Amino acid sequence: MDAPEIHLLAAGGALPGPAVDNARLAGLFGADELWQQWVDVFIGTQTRHFAVDLETNEVRYWLADLGATAARRALDAAGLAAADVELVVLATSTPDQLMPATVNVVADRLGIDGVPTFQLQSGCTGAFQALEVARQMLLSGRHRNALVIGGDVCAKLLDVDRDRGRVRAEDLVNIAMFGDAAGAAVLSASPGPDSVLIRHLDLRLTGLGRAPGHTVQWWGPARRDEDGPGAAEDYKAIEERVPVMSAEVLRRILDELGWAGSEVDYLLPPQLSGRMTAKIVQRLGLPGAKEVSCVRETGNTGNALPFFQLERLLPLLGAGQRAVAVAIESSKWIESGFAVEKPGGRPGPGADPRSGSQDHDSFR
Amino acid sequence: MDAPEIHLLAAGGALPGPAVDNARLAGLFGADELWQQWVDVFIGTQTRHFAVDLETNEVRYWLADLGATAARRALDAAGLAAADVELVVLATSTPDQLMPATVNVVADRLGIDGVPTFQLQSGCTGAFQALEVARQMLLSGRHRNALVIGGDVCAKLLDVDRDRGRVRAEDLVNIAMFGDAAGAAVLSASPGPDSVLIRHLDLRLTGLGRAPGHTVQWWGPARRDEDGPGAAEDYKAIEERVPVMSAEVLRRILDELGWAGSEVDYLLPPQLSGRMTAKIVQRLGLPGAKEVSCVRETGNTGNALPFFQLERLLPLLGAGQRAVAVAIESSKWIESGFAVEKPGGRPGPGADPRSGSQDHDSFR
Repeated sequence: MDAPEIHLLAAGGALPGPAVDNARLAGLFGADELWQQWVDVFIGTQTRHFAVDLETNEVRYWLADLGATAARRALDAAGLAAADVELVVLATSTPDQLMPATVNVVADRLGIDGVPTFQLQSGCTGAFQALEVARQMLLSGRHRNALVIGGDVCAKLLDVDRDRGRVRAEDLVNIAMFGDAAGAAVLSASPGPDSVLIRHLDLRLTGLGRAPGHTVQWWGPARRDEDGPGAAEDYKAIEERVPVMSAEVLRRILDELGWAGSEVDYLLPPQLSGRMTAKIVQRLGLPGAKEVSCVRETGNTGNALPFFQLERLLPLLGAGQRAVAVAIESSKWIESGFAVEKPGGRPGPGADPRSGSQDHDSFR
Repeated sequence: MDAPEIHLLAAGGALPGPAVDNARLAGLFGADELWQQWVDVFIGTQTRHFAVDLETNEVRYWLADLGATAARRALDAAGLAAADVELVVLATSTPDQLMPATVNVVADRLGIDGVPTFQLQSGCTGAFQALEVARQMLLSGRHRNALVIGGDVCAKLLDVDRDRGRVRAEDLVNIAMFGDAAGAAVLSASPGPDSVLIRHLDLRLTGLGRAPGHTVQWWGPARRDEDGPGAAEDYKAIEERVPVMSAEVLRRILDELGWAGSEVDYLLPPQLSGRMTAKIVQRLGLPGAKEVSCVRETGNTGNALPFFQLERLLPLLGAGQRAVAVAIESSKWIESGFAVEKPGGRPGPGADPRSGSQDHDSFR
């Protein structure tokens, strides 16, 4: 167990444009009502937001736009100003440019200067990696407050013009499953009025020699005429591996902290799709834990998602209550998870603060 | 000053293909002898290596290839095996793919599994950022040995076919200035037989609101037909700012450690080009320090370069001797530097180990 521990002061998120429902998607991309029903049932994602205007194909928001908005919200919620930030870490799989790194554009917009900044290139576990980099740097004692940002914007990958009316089924799955967003959190070496303790964070590359389950390409000027898809997924491998890996990381976290599964009050599961999340939650077997999910409303927003879950979690956590978050990266396979606890002491068994609700329904 | 301190055990580098001299470059890209002389005098870079075969435009090496080779060399030099590595950090501005992150491909090739991995998106200060992430994580006590990798491969940016015989002058500058490579270092919480101590590392975004001096774009399938250059540099701003910023970070490091300039035995200056490096070294004013540079032979290899400098430095450092490295990122402007010292006690003034050589000549 790590000591001393780092405090998570606040979290905030930013979504671009209006929510786009499955009927609108089906209409835009020439899919039929059967497809729409299939998305409802087998993907389970109801709405998502896009950084691209679906009518004009114009990019309305870049990652730097969403990242700066989310960061301001998190800082406001933490009661901190830009001048209080001594470290900035951003995670994304879709930076706006290769250089400068988007983290530096965001920092500049916020008026943050003279501090170390780091940008992590990662998929679904990037937010956890960014939290870990910030946490470890705070633990080593050189910085007091860290701003952690995660987000993804599909603007360079989603070709509305090309896909309209003649999209392939496998691409439609991605369009239905993913969404654009950024999120942020503020970590501190000192507690805040409503902060929670990060009790542990587990992060590991796993599965030596296993083929990638998700690839995303980029092109530069020399090779942008090359053939091949921009993104490819092995959904069979993802569906098979992610629940198993989620259970592994959850087990390690509980073992590390000596927590029983019944002592976890909230679960922040991976947010691949509405249906996958439901399957994973079932597999994780924490009947006493309330699920905190947002994937049905936002889609899979990659590096942004854990911050949306945290933003929902924080006002719910009572003194002594505990939550565990899990994320799995399927590009090369990475397991990650963390545990938070609201200070104030855990009540004894006779005074369990849980309302008795044992349901798995998504929060809200 | 940080305590406890982290040990740098070894460093290694990997260069692709044969050295390409200025005459060969001029011939390939249809430049005249005047241009070749101009490169010799005003760039000062004599040779470089390319991941792309200049005859066929085929990509012969990707970053993962070079990164794995450099990592094996660094591990061998440190006397460690893949199983000893508890953390991998890679820095690049040109990852092979957006997902999976190249760090995970390299780790997999080396047989490293079950450990945290991080990939930093950065330009010329990425190697320093990666060293800092690894160092802080070792300092916080959870890991013993870290593998740190940096590299860049221009394969997606350098269009040999397009540029052959009709390249624009400003693109020729880039072709003459940059090269491909990867480097690696092994950091440890425990000393090795020939290790040096990392005494301090300084890293900060600086220059609020200052326009980027270097931009590199990427395209996805949705927008790869968009116009505009893949890369753009403001060489005037770079030439003006980098020496000033280098002096700032050097000053802070010396102040932090209480070192006099005369106590620095070796200087690892920024490696933008042969000529720029010479100007910076002059500006830094450390007459007693021997310069450790490789830019004339390798070109500016971005995130790889500090590892080549370290590989050259380590066998030179005697007991008690000190070195300072500086790198400046000109995308959004970042100052970075670190100081290392060979354990064994610094001799008194009467037993100065320096050979009396006061020259600024590049090593080798």
